[in-house]
Order: sequence, then C-alpha cells, then structure tokens
Amino acid sequence: MTDENKTPDKFTIINELARRRGFFWQSYEIYGGVSGFVTYGFLGFKLKQSIEKKLRQLFVNKFGILEIESPIIAPSKVFEASGHVGHFKEPMVECLKCKRRFRADHLLQEFAEISPSEAEKLSLEEVETAIDEHKIRCPECEGTFGEPKYFLTMFKTTIGPYSEAVGYGRPEAAQGIFVEFRRLYEMVREKLPFGVMQIGHALRNEISPRQGLIRLREFTIIDLEFFFNPEESNCFPLKDVENETLPLVLAEKKLRGLEEIVEVTVKKALEKGYIKAEWQAVFMLLAKKLLVALGVPAEKQRFIEKLPWEKAHYALQSFDQEVYVERWGWVEVSGHAYRTDYDLKSHMQFSGVDMRVFKEHEKPVERMQTAVKPLMTKLGPAFKKKAAKVAEMLSEADPGEVEAHFKKNGYYTLEEYKVLPEHVEITRQKVKERGKRFIPHVVEPSFGSDRLVYVALEYAYRVKDGRAILSFPRDIAPIQAGVYPLVSKDGLPEKALQVYKTLIDEGFTVEYDEAGSIGRRYARADEIGVPLGITVDYETLKDNTVTIRDRDSWRQVRSQIKNLPELLHKYFRWKADFKDLGKPFEV
Amino acid sequence: MTDENKTPDKFTIINELARRRGFFWQSYEIYGGVSGFVTYGFLGFKLKQSIEKKLRQLFVNKFGILEIESPIIAPSKVFEASGHVGHFKEPMVECLKCKRRFRADHLLQEFAEISPSEAEKLSLEEVETAIDEHKIRCPECEGTFGEPKYFLTMFKTTIGPYSEAVGYGRPEAAQGIFVEFRRLYEMVREKLPFGVMQIGHALRNEISPRQGLIRLREFTIIDLEFFFNPEESNCFPLKDVENETLPLVLAEKKLRGLEEIVEVTVKKALEKGYIKAEWQAVFMLLAKKLLVALGVPAEKQRFIEKLPWEKAHYALQSFDQEVYVERWGWVEVSGHAYRTDYDLKSHMQFSGVDMRVFKEHEKPVERMQTAVKPLMTKLGPAFKKKAAKVAEMLSEADPGEVEAHFKKNGYYTLEEYKVLPEHVEITRQKVKERGKRFIPHVVEPSFGSDRLVYVALEYAYRVKDGRAILSFPRDIAPIQAGVYPLVSKDGLPEKALQVYKTLIDEGFTVEYDEAGSIGRRYARADEIGVPLGITVDYETLKDNTVTIRDRDSWRQVRSQIKNLPELLHKYFRWKADFKDLGKPFEV
Repeated sequence: MTDENKTPDKFTIINELARRRGFFWQSYEIYGGVSGFVTYGFLGFKLKQSIEKKLRQLFVNKFGILEIESPIIAPSKVFEASGHVGHFKEPMVECLKCKRRFRADHLLQEFAEISPSEAEKLSLEEVETAIDEHKIRCPECEGTFGEPKYFLTMFKTTIGPYSEAVGYGRPEAAQGIFVEFRRLYEMVREKLPFGVMQIGHALRNEISPRQGLIRLREFTIIDLEFFFNPEESNCFPLKDVENETLPLVLAEKKLRGLEEIVEVTVKKALEKGYIKAEWQAVFMLLAKKLLVALGVPAEKQRFIEKLPWEKAHYALQSFDQEVYVERWGWVEVSGHAYRTDYDLKSHMQFSGVDMRVFKEHEKPVERMQTAVKPLMTKLGPAFKKKAAKVAEMLSEADPGEVEAHFKKNGYYTLEEYKVLPEHVEITRQKVKERGKRFIPHVVEPSFGSDRLVYVALEYAYRVKDGRAILSFPRDIAPIQAGVYPLVSKDGLPEKALQVYKTLIDEGFTVEYDEAGSIGRRYARADEIGVPLGITVDYETLKDNTVTIRDRDSWRQVRSQIKNLPELLHKYFRWKADFKDLGKPFEV
Repeated sequence: MTDENKTPDKFTIINELARRRGFFWQSYEIYGGVSGFVTYGFLGFKLKQSIEKKLRQLFVNKFGILEIESPIIAPSKVFEASGHVGHFKEPMVECLKCKRRFRADHLLQEFAEISPSEAEKLSLEEVETAIDEHKIRCPECEGTFGEPKYFLTMFKTTIGPYSEAVGYGRPEAAQGIFVEFRRLYEMVREKLPFGVMQIGHALRNEISPRQGLIRLREFTIIDLEFFFNPEESNCFPLKDVENETLPLVLAEKKLRGLEEIVEVTVKKALEKGYIKAEWQAVFMLLAKKLLVALGVPAEKQRFIEKLPWEKAHYALQSFDQEVYVERWGWVEVSGHAYRTDYDLKSHMQFSGVDMRVFKEHEKPVERMQTAVKPLMTKLGPAFKKKAAKVAEMLSEADPGEVEAHFKKNGYYTLEEYKVLPEHVEITRQKVKERGKRFIPHVVEPSFGSDRLVYVALEYAYRVKDGRAILSFPRDIAPIQAGVYPLVSKDGLPEKALQVYKTLIDEGFTVEYDEAGSIGRRYARADEIGVPLGITVDYETLKDNTVTIRDRDSWRQVRSQIKNLPELLHKYFRWKADFKDLGKPFEV
C-alpha cells in the first residue's frame, strides 16, 4: 500500500516489528498463510493478557460483574432467534470472468466513493445499479460482475458428524450470555442490576480481510451484558463520574454532514438525551479510561453515534468508541449498544421459556380490575350449540376492549359471532398487585481484544536516537524487567541468574539475556517495551547492588538486590516512580 | 444410570450442585440443550482459571516455557499433514429402522464386552462380524444395523463464505504450535530445548457425548510441546525430581492381562527404559504434583502406558495420567506422548518448508567424503546418446552404495544401464562439518481443563453433619473469602461492606452476603468451597476486630481488620495456617 520510496507508515512498522519479535503474525505461513487469522507469540499473548487484566480491573471487579465461559459453537436456533441468521450478511459480487468474489460495499467505497454508511442503506438492486452506473469492473481481471448476492458472515458447521443439525461459530459472545439468562439471574439470587462478561474467541467469515489485527476472521471478543430495570434509576456509580467528559459525535450532526466532536460531561449527555441509558454512559466513560490506561490519550478518542441504518439490528442506540490511527484514521475499538429487551424477548419467543423477572412493589398496588362474565342463560338461546365456544372466546378477550366496543358500536364481534351487552355481565373489583413481570433491559460494552492490542502497540511506538522503543504503560508491558550480567564471565551470569530467579518466584515476568554487548541488550529490550533493565556488574559482587535502567529516559539508579521485589511491586502498582527505585547513577 | 432408591453417586451429586450453584451446566437448555457443550458460570469459570493458574505456576513460569495463542480454525492442509484427516475417525453404525447413529466401539463394549482397547484393533469388517456374532440390535428400537462406516470427528466448515476452502475446528492445540515452529524457534533465538504452551478451546465432533465434563464436543485443552535434541541429555530439572516416584501401569504388563501399578522412581523408570524420554518423565512427575495440588492424592492417580494399537498415530510412546472417580473408575486427565519428530517432519513434507534446526559441533568434525565422478570419455562410447543421462543419474546416486555394488557385483545398475568401475573415478577427500541439521523431537503433556475441573470437584466434595462442603485446596477455591454482617442492621452491613471493599481492592475474590441467618450463609459458602468466612459483629463496632471462620474445621479466630490483607495474602500463599490468622474464638 505504501510507495517504495516513502517512509513506511506505522501500520507497516508495527506489523514488521510484531512479526520479527514475535508479538503476532499471520497464521499458517508455511502453507501460504490464511488471511484473517493471526497467531500471538509469547509477547503478543502477554500483552493481550495484560490488556484483558486491565479491563477486568476497571469493569469487572469493582462492579461485581460475573465472568462466565460459554461455547463458541451454537445450534442454528440460537442465531435464528438472535436475528443473526437474518441480518448478519453482506452484499457480494462475483467476477464472471475470474470467479473472484468481492464485498460489494468495499468496491463501492473504493471505486464510486460511496461511504460505508451510505452503502449500508442500499438494497441489492441499488447495489447492482450503482455498480453499473460507475462501471465498476473486477479489480483483478477487468471482468464484469454477476448479480450481487448476500452472504452470511458466520462459519457454518454441523453438530454431530453426518448430522443435519446446523451449528454456527458465534460472531459475538453475547448470545452465550442471553440464552443462559435464567440460570445467571438465579446465580445473583434474582436481583437487578447485574452484569455478565465473557472473553473468548469469536468468528466472522469475512470474504477477504486484509487489515491485520483490525479485521480478523477469528478474533477475541469481550462482551459485557449489563441487565437492569429500565424504570428504575439505580446506576450507583453515576455520581462518581458524572462530571467527567465524553467526546461525542452525535447522529443528528452526522446527518447534517458534521463530524465534529462535542466534549460533554456524562451528566449533560444524559440530561440532553444524547445517551439514552445511564449505565451506557458510565460504561462509555470507563471505556475511555481503559484506552487512556492502554496509552491512547483522550484527545485521540471519540464516541460516534451510529445512524439508524448503520446500527445493528438489536440496538436502540449505539456508539462506537474510535481511536485515531495513522493509516485508517478513526477505527472502532469498542461498541456501546443499548440492546433494550431485544435479545431476551426474541429468545423468549423462540424457546417459549419465560425470560421475565418479577419485581415486587414496595407495597402491593391496588387497582380496579374489570371482568367480562358470559351469561350462559343468555348465550345459550342466542348461539345454540356454539354458545360454549363463544363463552370461551369471551373469557379470553380483553375486558376493556369489549367494553369499549359496546360503548362505540353496541356490540362486540368474535369471529362471526356478534355479542351484545345483555349476553354478559361486566363486573369490577379491586385487586392487589404484589409486583410486576418484565424483561430486563441490556446495555452492552463490547471490545475487540485484537484491536486493543493494535492501538496499544501503535501508541507505544516511538523513535529515540534512531531506535524503536515501545513505551507501553508499565502495567501492560508484556515483560516487566530484564536481568543482565554486564559481561558473561567472572561469575556475573551466576549472580544475575539468582536475581532473575528471585523475581520469577515473586511472580514477575522477567527475561534473562547475556548475549551481546549490554547496549545491544538494552536496545533489544527497549524494542519490545521492557520498562526496567536490571544489570549485575562488578560492583554487585562487592556490595550486592544492581543498576536499574528506565526504558524511556535511559536513566539509571542503583539499588540493593534484597529490596528489588518490594520496589518492583510498588513500581508496577503505580505506588512508586522510577526515581524512587534507587540512587541516581551515572554510567 | 442410578436406581431411584439408591443414593445418587458423586457424578450425579456434583452435577446437580454444579447446576444449582452455577459452576457449570449443559449449554442452550432453553432450546433443549445440546450434548457435549457446557457453559461455566462464575464459580466454574473461576475454578477453571485457578486450575490453569496452578498449572502455569508448576509448568510454565519455572521452565521459561512460552505461552502463545493460535486460532481454533485451521485450513484442511494442516490436518492432512498432521494425519488427523486420515486417523481422527471412529467406526459408526446406523440403525436401518430408526436411523439413529451409534459409535460401534461403544456398542461392542456395552453388548459384547469387548474392551475399548480391543475394539480399537478391529477393522470395519471385523466390527461388522462382531456385531452380527453378538446379535447386537439398536438399543433404541431393536432395529438392525447397516454397514459400519468411519466418521471424522472434526467439525468441518469453509473459510470464506461460499468458498471451497475446507477448514476444521482444531481437535488439539498442538498443531497451532507445530506449524509456527520456525517463528517460535526464532523467538527463543534458535536454542534447544524450549517449550511452547497454549490453552484454548478445541473441538471434537462426537456422535453422542453423554458424560458431562468428561466427554465434550467443545472443551479446553492445554497442550505443551517441548522441543529438544534427542541426542543430547540436557534435561536440567531431572536431578531435582529423579528420586520421586511415579505410579506406572506398563504396556508389557497390560499385554499379559495385568493392570498392576508399579511405583518407581523417575530415575529407575528411565534406567529401565519404562519411559523413553527424560523430559517426558519430568513432565509426568509435574503432572502428578499438579493433581495433588488440585486435591487428588497420589494413590488415586496412575500413569497407564498405551498399547501399540491404542496410541495416537503420532506417538512413539504414550502414557495416560488417570484419576480414579466413583462412577467410571480410572479416567484420563492428561496424556503424555513422545511425538518424536513426527509432526514437524510431516509439516516439512507437506509445506516444503525446512523444519530442521542447525546444531553447531563444539569443534568442526573432519570426515572423509567419497565422491563418484563420471568419466565422460568412458561413458560416451559405452552409452552413446544416453551418456549424459547416465552421468546425471550417477551424480545423484549414493557414492557409498555405488562402491559397495562395484565390490560385490563388479557393476552398478541405473535403470537399464550397467555402469562399470572403469566408467567412473572414485575420489576421497577430507571435509570439515561445522554442525548438523536435524528435526527436534517433541514430548507433549496435554491436559483437559474440563476434566481437571471435574476431578477437583469430586475430590473436594464431602459431607459434614449432613451438609455438603467443597473442601478445595485454598489456592484453587473460586471465591477466597465471604464477608458477612452478623445481622443486617445497626450499621453492621456498612462496616462489612468496608471490609469487603478493602479486600477487593487488595485483589482478593470476595463475596458479600447479608441474606438469611449467619448459619445459613456459612452453609451456602461451605457448599461452594469458600475457605474463609469473615464476620462483622457488634464487637467489631467497638474494637475493629472480626471473626474468621475456617470452612473445613468450622473453627473461628478473631483478628484486627487492618491486619486482614496481610494475613490473607500469607494464608493463600501457604505461608500461614488458619491458626495463625488470629486468636482462637469460641462462639
């Protein structure tokens, strides 16, 4: 994508570094590679794990959110109910000459300058017309295209070999939570609000993904479904965050062609109705904090509201959290959808299992109940042997509706039968209602782990004195410290290995390296973002002190070996700064 | 499976408890459930996570083993090379009447008392004969069976929608490591030995799995591939464990019908050749320790060697680590296979990518190299226009072989051409060999996380005073402590919530419970295995002390709130016992 003579962009640099140092690379390279699949090496796996840990710290532990694990494969029924079988599809065209397939919306974007958001509105016929009008030909062979068709972007399989039971790889982890709602609700002893999260692989069978970690066929999703009573305002964390701000791009502005960011407090966003659910606003703010913790400054983030035709089929309101990256501009890293009762309601309809919860009133509510009582002595003569049938239908009719029809027309029609006021007795009585049943509403923050990994890498990347450094925030760095003997002789390696083992036993992620000059080892460590370098030198053999080097400033301090575990624990929990780790030391 | 009047067995009890308290349950219950799929609720997820953490402590951190993450879906080629497409299959029969399908080996076991190990030896024809001979009919409808067929127990899909690129769900995580060997070897800077582990979902499309966590279609596998040079003895941890013992059931004894366990030291097992690779013996010992740490005593474990026809297609030698469980007797929890160079060699053949590593000799080795040089002046007259072809074939022939034939027969045959000694010149020269290329060997410990969860539950289960307690080892308990106000009034809940929050902030997994009598809350906590119960009572308001209750002994001690974090950290790191947590306290 980049010119040979141009400086490669950050995407290229990050991918090259990631491959060379083993953060991640395209899977199955020895078989030519398969696009949309990546393998994380040790460093990438650790980075991803640290990011997920950070998210758990911010989102899960504090709010008592439950983490669960459900399967990746689900029976067809689940995704019929969720609407994915009906909606999770994209328009595709096939070249009549070379038979290659392309996503029609991508072609329209590239060759007709129709934005993805515009393209999403088009029907298949309109897509075909647009392709014809713009004379779009196959980018590979100049052939013409056949009729556009929809393809389902789920991986399909069968459950049980040679069976006809269709199953799909899940495109989101959310359904594994919704279908188990009854059990989960029991687990929290039937109290709202509560949240359930799951982190796991998900699958989307894209036609030809080509954007590294940004668009994958198999990726890690983090779905958090938060269940609450929409009629109750009990968003307890709101007061702690209501004066912090969110950078919003609102749909109404987008419709007028303006993509400007408005910086509003959580409080104002709710008051003005920019964000429709309190919990959603809170989670959006936490998402902003998460990205800051991963190294993406607030001013490189925005929350863009989806237009009606851009939203997923289940969402009442939806914001994408986007981060600015060099190659593509704004890229989504999380979605914040107000799914209302859409999913639970659909599963209730498809399964016949009651998904409603019972909410007791503080005290029973009294209300008048109207009842329509069929008078058999009148119905008998009027409807003969159909009387019993009419009586049964009447008992199932809505009494209010019956009364209204009597008032308006003087009769009420049930199939071909005309019921008159004298056929029934209308009674009224006071009833006590103990509580009511309703389907909880859901707001969902949903993150793509792989995209978080990518933006953390891009924002960590910098160059100092012509050398690459990954300046990760200290608590997400894949390796926390390197231990180095200054030279590999005179007992220094043995001493360094002791230090290394002590730190491993204390639970730190540490690497030991004795190959090459100390400068080269520091450079290697900087390139993979190791925050601290601990060097054992000849002084160490005399007084048991070591130097500690800071990855970013390249400054050094000197400390006692025996104090290292405590100092490092404090440093990585942000309870000490680098300068607190020892006495300044000049090389 | 159990009689109505009989006490339910532990499998039944554990499954009921697991479902009721939210450890795990069959997935998709609202759609009738799908066998072979489970969902882990919060407690089960935490338990599984603790078990995996324990395994990392024992296996990964100490040996510098690298953890990676690769996709679940792989292109067909990967599993053709690995031999799974050819070998990963089971015999199946279909009832001609009701069309239900059964695994033939399971029928033979149930109705013909042919053991699984015997059944594995049978060809399809022999399976058919055995079914006929034992007059086995459909267990559901008494119908007769059609011809046995093999079915592939992998989930099949296509990569790319409407594409013909077949992909499979991985039945093991190992291949995701082997195919990336070259990159991984670079990551460790080209040094042997090294190990790579991955924990992730795997898929096996069983016909009708019916054993809860023991046999799943989607499960979590932990595959550790350890690469080493088979000609070098550098198993550094061996000396630390060589005098510890392993309970082995050897294949040669099994062949003679004896399933006796021999308890031998690691050292003796290697000396006697019971275990063929040093690293394998070390990992087997670690696996034994892991299970002890999960609560399964050594005497309830054994390592049973697989017979030649029971072994996976890739294994030179293979042991199953088995744990005794109440319902099924011995059940596999891990496999220890010496995969040799099987996988890397296959991928080298299928991909054409060199999987060999280069090992430099300590000093270059001199050896004599024989060469056969065709003499064109002699070949020309002898073979006319075929001379060039003969010369070419000669240059590709093994010089040693040519020489040997000359010596034995006086000539060497190449296709129809008879080459005589005078046609060539045989030269000898000294060459220096810098090192050699070879494919590393692999030993693989492979665990099923779900089975580890099950055996941990079964071994934790006990009954005291008629109440169920899960006596998990303290460091694998899903919840570490419960915090309870003695009564929910007079400011006790507020005080208890402070204690709760302090412990959460310190990183503990804690639950807060104020519902019901304190006795009932203790009982609820015991049933899910919470090791410590911390109760805030009226004394607390006076002197800031709380009681701490031990799950297993039900004894209590009293401690200062401010000391709790440190005391608990020590307790959960096994650096303090319960009695060290405070002053004895009688209720």
